[in-house]
Order: sequence, then structure tokens, then C-alpha cells
Amino acid sequence: MLPTSIPSLDAAAALAARERIDQLTKPVGSLGRIEELAERLAAMHGGLPPLYDRRAIVVGAGDHGVTAEGVSAYPSEVTPQMVGAFLGEFAAINAFARVARAEVFVANFGVASELPKHPRLLDRSVGRGTRNLAREAAMPVDHVAAALEAGAHAFADVEARVQPEIIALGEMGIGNSTSAAALICAFTGAEADDVVGRGTGVDDDALRRKQQVVADAAKRVEELDWRSVVAEIGGYEIVGLAGVLLAAASRRVPILLDGFIVSAAALVAQQIAPEAIGYCVAAHRSRELGHAIALRHLGLVPLLDLDLRLGEASGAALAFPLCEAAARMVREMKTFAQAGVATAHAPIEA
Amino acid sequence: MLPTSIPSLDAAAALAARERIDQLTKPVGSLGRIEELAERLAAMHGGLPPLYDRRAIVVGAGDHGVTAEGVSAYPSEVTPQMVGAFLGEFAAINAFARVARAEVFVANFGVASELPKHPRLLDRSVGRGTRNLAREAAMPVDHVAAALEAGAHAFADVEARVQPEIIALGEMGIGNSTSAAALICAFTGAEADDVVGRGTGVDDDALRRKQQVVADAAKRVEELDWRSVVAEIGGYEIVGLAGVLLAAASRRVPILLDGFIVSAAALVAQQIAPEAIGYCVAAHRSRELGHAIALRHLGLVPLLDLDLRLGEASGAALAFPLCEAAARMVREMKTFAQAGVATAHAPIEA
Repeated sequence: MLPTSIPSLDAAAALAARERIDQLTKPVGSLGRIEELAERLAAMHGGLPPLYDRRAIVVGAGDHGVTAEGVSAYPSEVTPQMVGAFLGEFAAINAFARVARAEVFVANFGVASELPKHPRLLDRSVGRGTRNLAREAAMPVDHVAAALEAGAHAFADVEARVQPEIIALGEMGIGNSTSAAALICAFTGAEADDVVGRGTGVDDDALRRKQQVVADAAKRVEELDWRSVVAEIGGYEIVGLAGVLLAAASRRVPILLDGFIVSAAALVAQQIAPEAIGYCVAAHRSRELGHAIALRHLGLVPLLDLDLRLGEASGAALAFPLCEAAARMVREMKTFAQAGVATAHAPIEA
Repeated sequence: MLPTSIPSLDAAAALAARERIDQLTKPVGSLGRIEELAERLAAMHGGLPPLYDRRAIVVGAGDHGVTAEGVSAYPSEVTPQMVGAFLGEFAAINAFARVARAEVFVANFGVASELPKHPRLLDRSVGRGTRNLAREAAMPVDHVAAALEAGAHAFADVEARVQPEIIALGEMGIGNSTSAAALICAFTGAEADDVVGRGTGVDDDALRRKQQVVADAAKRVEELDWRSVVAEIGGYEIVGLAGVLLAAASRRVPILLDGFIVSAAALVAQQIAPEAIGYCVAAHRSRELGHAIALRHLGLVPLLDLDLRLGEASGAALAFPLCEAAARMVREMKTFAQAGVATAHAPIEA
């Protein structure tokens, strides 16, 4: 199920888009990041980007044994409660999804409790929450491949339902910013103090505990291969989302990355198939410390900077309209010649 | 027609919105700028913001005699040509308006040539282009009040047609970044070299000429009252847009400001009724030099930073979805208590 290869980005399509963009009725380069986005989307699709009528959001969910260390402001039972809120459509991501006319799916990759069935809940659970990464491996090493597979299956589920032309990735999992921080340290070489933030809002004591847990975990995995690193410290939803990302990239579907946790998932995907990151768009820069470090390592520059730190794909959802704007710009604007407008260098008589 | 007073922002409504936001199922403050936006919009509306089903864009158009100094990369005939493109719906602003489901109106405040009639062209012309501000006053002093009135009428025209719940302001006028730069220098005290940018893309020689024109003009108006400053260096569309802004604020309609030129219009409005700026949202930070200076003087922090420098309201239009997101957040999300989700401090049994 997990793709064996990622198609190359289409450099010719990007060039054709750029050439068209430079002839549209506007000063060259005057739409800045939107132009650059249109060019990148063209490279992903292998032609002009579609208007993105079909949009999906995949929120990966999982629990984390490391919450036993007192590293989170919220208790673990909030994970299934928030999954219920997403499916009941009264959480932040649902409000933002309505703005973007996107459908919200929740993929259960490893929630500790039993979840009631729901048409938009994709049951792809690999384990009932990770073990406490501060004391032992978070998951057995064969669960890494299983969670990646689960992600690919979740993407296939979504594809079968709505055939998305673009997807946004988000997450829910109390404790997962500890796991994500450890992965970011492990894969970028950054120090725990530069990566560990307050997550959903821990106090100073919990922050110090969290920094220690992350520093110890990063140290422990220093010499390991990526798969063992992920088994030691990864979360089920983080690895599952890496699988969704790889599957979407293999199908040339652009992927809007949400914040800190999803960037850790992208770093896992980058270990497996670096070319998959070419299909990713960093939707926003989170307020969470260390997100910028992860984005730099992915080679991505975020579109938005709105001081968000919620997760759920809330920041990613806000970037759908920018992708539509980029697509409409390159598809719907006329060129100077088509419009009969004078250019800077070749005036046309009025 | 021009409003005689601007209603006070509703502090109680802002506080009620903030109290609700802090109880929604998310960590306090985790939606950053979107929360702050919801609070500000509540203060403007005097209650929870609507979902903004009715959105309008007003592009003010005018010509500038200062183009005779060779300060622009494009010839003046591009102004009416681009107005034609907006009305023909194949310009950048039309593409972005479709994303936001907003209706585009063009207000002719002072285009030099005759414009063909069109249902979405508001004919509120005060003069056939300004005189060359480098040599003489841009407009007679009584045209300042007339252009403000014309703006108020243009807003009333739009109100009669679509009853907008929110508007975005943009502009078209070859040469207007010179006029705007001079106004920004005059009203903020900034130096020409810190404010004058390349506009639509002038070369080094033209940039030096433009800096000189702006520095001379700013010097010339140093001792004048605001009305005389505007008569000396203002553009018809800039003053007209200030009138639109004042009229919208008087009706408690939030105003999305586009870039550099529109910020000059806001500075003019600020001279007349500083409280009107409380109804403004800075949609984005333009790449044009000096925009940040104008925004600081207005006390506004931009939402987006996408390296745009086009004008037309293109940046403003991209911020409509963020306003809708803010409104949906505060209206559609449930509180922790309503949702039965455990909070950080008061866990609920799962």
C-alpha cells in the first residue's frame, strides 16, 4: 500500500506557469508568494493547478504514554473528547473547514480508548496509545511500518470518498508535542531547549520536565537509524500522518502542512522519501518553539504567520484560499496581449 | 453625505467576545491573531461578527499629472485599461474576489479619460486627473471636500446595491505611489528615502527622480494644514477612498485595507476622524517601502505578509477568509462545558 516511489516534480509545467504568470496584466513579480505558490502547485500537478473544488482535511489522532511524566496541560481523555468534537463539527477545525469548503476526516492511528464508529472516522489504529517514551520505546519497531501503512490506507479511504485535489494534515493527541519535539531534535540535530515549547500551555515546572524528557530521548536515539528513532520516540498519529503524506505525494496531491507536530511527521516522511517534501506547502509558522527549525530542515517557507498554536490542521485550513487564489490567478487572469493593456516596455495606444 | 461622526467601538461587545473565545474548546490564546481579529470585529459590529455573506470590494481609480516627471514604469493610459480589465473581470482582483465571493466595484474618482458606462462602475469623478504635483497643487483645495463626498457617495452606491457586511479597499492609478509616498511623508514625518519604493517597478533613474519629487513635495507642505497638504499632493482616488473609509466606519462596516496607496488614504481619513481607523483591518504588509511606516502610524498590524505589491485590493481580498474564520470560530465552536471536554484545570471524566 505504501508507495514505492514519488513522481518527480514537473519542472516544465512550473516553467510554463511562470512564463504565463509573467505575461499576466500586473507588474512582473507583483503577486509575490502567490506567484511562487502557483509555480510550485503547477510542478506538483504537472500542469496548471485546478481550482480545488475537492478539498479534504485529515486529522491524525493518537495517545502518548509520555503524559505520565506530567508534560501536558491536559489529561489524555481530551484526545477522544476532541475527536468527538471534530466529528460533531463544533471544534476550531470544523469552523475553519467551512470557510475553506473542505471535508474533515479523523484518522485514528493510535487513540488509547475505544472510539464510537462514525462515517468520517477512519479506523486505522495500530496500537492503543504509545508507551512512555521517557522510560522505554514508544512502540515496537514493526509498528513503524504498520503506522506508515495505516497512513497510506487512510489516504486511500479519503481518496475513495472525495477524490481530493488537495489535502491538509492536522493532528490531535495529548502529549504529542513532546514526541514531536524529540523527533525534531533527532532529525535536525537541534537542542531540546531550542525546540521544546509549551504545547497546549504547560507551566514552568512542566516545561522543565518536558525539556529534560526530550533532551534525554534525543540523546538516547543519537546513533540509531530512522526507523529505530521513530520506534523509540514517535507517536502513532505522527507516523500515520507521514504515511498519509507519502501516499498523497505519490498521487501528486498537494499537502498543506499544519504546525509543529505535523512538521515532525514531515521530517519522518523526509527520512523515507525526501522528494515527497516537494509536494508539501507549509501553511503557517506556529508560535510553538522549534517549528521554524523543522521548516528550515524541510526547506519550506510558511505562507501565514498568525501566532497560532492549536493544531487540528487549523492553520493548514486557512491556507486553502491562498492555493485557490494562486490557481485562479494563473488560470483566470488575461495576459497584457489578451487584455489590450499597455506594458511597461511596449505601450499600446489607449 | 460625509458622516459627521463615527460611532464608538463597542468595548463591551469585544469583552463578551473575548470571554466566549476563552471558553471555547482550545487552549486559551491558541488561535492568536484570529482571536484578536474576532475581538476587534465584535467591537466594530457591537456584537458577534456576522459570517460575512455580503462582501464588496471598492477599487478607487484616478490619474496623476506627476507621471509627466517620469516616475512610473507604466504610461497613464494603463489606468482606464485596467479599469476595463476589472469590469471585464479578468484582472488579479477579479480572480481573488472569486475566492472570497466578493463583488468588485470600481469608483472613478478622477480618471483622465472618459470611461464607458458599466453597472459596476460608480461614476463619482471629481476631476480629470490631478495636475503635476511636482510643479503645482495637485488639485484645487475645494476638490478635497468634493473627493471625500464622492467617496461617501460611492459607499452609499455600494450599500444600496449589496448591503456589504465588510468591504475591501483598493486602487488603480498610474503614478499614485508617488502621491501616496508624499502623503505618507507629510503625515508621518518620515523621510522620502524611507518611504519611496519602486511602485509598479521603475528603474534606478526613475526611482531617484521619484525620491526627489516626493522629498520636494513633502518639504513644500511641511507647514500646511491637512486639507492643503492633500490638495497639494493628494490624488483623487486616494481622497475618494478616504471618503469611502469614513462612510463605511460611520455605518460600522469593517474595512480591509490593501497596501501602500490605501494606507495613504487611511492616513488622510485619520486626519479627519482618527476613530475611523478603529474600523480598519490591515490585510497585509506590502513589499513597497514605507508601507510599514504608514501602518505603524495607523496603529495597525497586518494579517498577511506575502510580498505583494500590486494594489487593486488584491492583498485586501485575500484577508476576507480570515475574517470569516474569526467569525465562525466565535459563533460556531462550542465551549468546553457545552462540548463536555476536559479543561486543563478541571478534568472531566471521559
